[in-house]
Amino acid sequence: MSKGQAAPILLVALGGNALIKKGQEGTIAQQFANLQEPIAQIARLSRDHRVIITHGNGPQVGNLLLQQECCQDVPRLPLEILVAQTQGQIGYMIESSLDNQFMALGLEVFKPLVSLISYVVVDGHDPAFANPDKPIGPVLSGEQAAGAAYPVMHTAKGWRRAVASPQPISIVEKREIKRLIGMDFIVICCGGGGIPVVRQGRHFAGVDAVIDKDLASARLGLEVGVEVFCMATDVPGAALDYGQPGERFLDSLSLDETRRYLEQGQFHPGSMGPKVRAALMFLEGGGQRALICSTQEIEAALAGKAGTHFHL
Amino acid sequence: MSKGQAAPILLVALGGNALIKKGQEGTIAQQFANLQEPIAQIARLSRDHRVIITHGNGPQVGNLLLQQECCQDVPRLPLEILVAQTQGQIGYMIESSLDNQFMALGLEVFKPLVSLISYVVVDGHDPAFANPDKPIGPVLSGEQAAGAAYPVMHTAKGWRRAVASPQPISIVEKREIKRLIGMDFIVICCGGGGIPVVRQGRHFAGVDAVIDKDLASARLGLEVGVEVFCMATDVPGAALDYGQPGERFLDSLSLDETRRYLEQGQFHPGSMGPKVRAALMFLEGGGQRALICSTQEIEAALAGKAGTHFHL
Repeated sequence: MSKGQAAPILLVALGGNALIKKGQEGTIAQQFANLQEPIAQIARLSRDHRVIITHGNGPQVGNLLLQQECCQDVPRLPLEILVAQTQGQIGYMIESSLDNQFMALGLEVFKPLVSLISYVVVDGHDPAFANPDKPIGPVLSGEQAAGAAYPVMHTAKGWRRAVASPQPISIVEKREIKRLIGMDFIVICCGGGGIPVVRQGRHFAGVDAVIDKDLASARLGLEVGVEVFCMATDVPGAALDYGQPGERFLDSLSLDETRRYLEQGQFHPGSMGPKVRAALMFLEGGGQRALICSTQEIEAALAGKAGTHFHL
Repeated sequence: MSKGQAAPILLVALGGNALIKKGQEGTIAQQFANLQEPIAQIARLSRDHRVIITHGNGPQVGNLLLQQECCQDVPRLPLEILVAQTQGQIGYMIESSLDNQFMALGLEVFKPLVSLISYVVVDGHDPAFANPDKPIGPVLSGEQAAGAAYPVMHTAKGWRRAVASPQPISIVEKREIKRLIGMDFIVICCGGGGIPVVRQGRHFAGVDAVIDKDLASARLGLEVGVEVFCMATDVPGAALDYGQPGERFLDSLSLDETRRYLEQGQFHPGSMGPKVRAALMFLEGGGQRALICSTQEIEAALAGKAGTHFHL
């Protein structure tokens, strides 16, 4: 990169496995330890990229919901507040891990970094509100499910609370994030897909919903002009016939191929589907480069040596 | 204020009653409703001040601790992480309330605003660690207190967990906050006094402690060059012989008077004492103007018509 030219903006959306790996209980020590590998890569990448980090919050918000169910002595908090709590928790964990990686790399690459509370506008008439289909929180007994004050759904794990997952329309802090990135701050934001709010006249109001973090990241990427949108997860990339005998890993996908495979139902709606849709949203909206890779291979994927790359 | 001259920087440290008033259960609706009065004043003050908002988190972190005690199914989180969660929660509540106040005032006064996760360096050898004297979390039964895996203390309410309250040395995000204020962002930060960390070689590590939010705010005020440091609480200001027949409200205090009254034990160590000490720290460190007022009278106090004013 030549002097005087602004570094490209890289958005890394960290999947849940960056914090809790399959089979782990998810102690705080495990979460900090798991973060080191992806965060070390992001610290190194920040030397020639401007960086935004977003992240999921599924197990963390699930634990807060479970605690609320257990404890009758404390006023219940709505889901929007629990999402805000996980933004604080995970934002701190990512920011302090990044700080530590910078100290390890040496101060010459130390950039200012901030972890922001983010909320995201959704449409109160989004069809998702009529059909809550995102399972969250603990597994419920049959009696709990039958008596629940909220919608429930049956999942592979059993009965769980179901919430709406509306489309992200706009990130409220987009102007702030854009200015921070313009000054080469590293920005951690949109945790858990953002705190969902609807516009009511001249006010915002929080709503009981969760926003897919990859879709929110794609929206943010378009709003602030991200050049590379990287979704880091627990598999090396997207595959056809995933988990079948004929499974084929995809290293490159055009927009037309992406649309066709989505129509064929190649990508599981609970895992790879939203990521592929987020890549599509980003490219259709004017983005240039989207990719899906494992949290171990962020640098390799950026160098074109790993991951699934989406192009026009 | 003349054009071209930077607006003075105002730091408002919001006390717990800005969120939960005495006798309230503390539902989320109550917390949002209580915030409107102080936040409306801060929104108006932002027209001719650059603004930093800090806040307490006592009842909120207490509720999270209580939930952890109730619920055995979820891995325990250390206190630092709970503080981070409350920064997310309360940061969101303040930011969205401010957003709504701006929308009500009209867009011409709309400033960029961010709510930042903040951590604060303390000394691992601070004498407070040998003498944990800050009560937090729920009241414990005698058996719970006897069997607790952590220090406990007897308070007016009964047995409670005791944690160290070390002195704040430096706010880790001070450079970032200073740059944001320089661009006239409104910055919400240092929630709950900040997440306490100690330096261990080239790393930061979280510690089980809480930092007084007024002392942390005074430290931040000095580090970023705040002109007016305003602590808003549930009383009109500091008083001599508080709660006694001869109670006298103080509208103005010199540094010498402040030191003398502190030595006389005029200010209660659990309430007004830390505020007066924070005012003293701010002025002794080079700050110009500190004041203590009620959350209803922030604008009046800034105009010199209410509150206790500290001067050199």
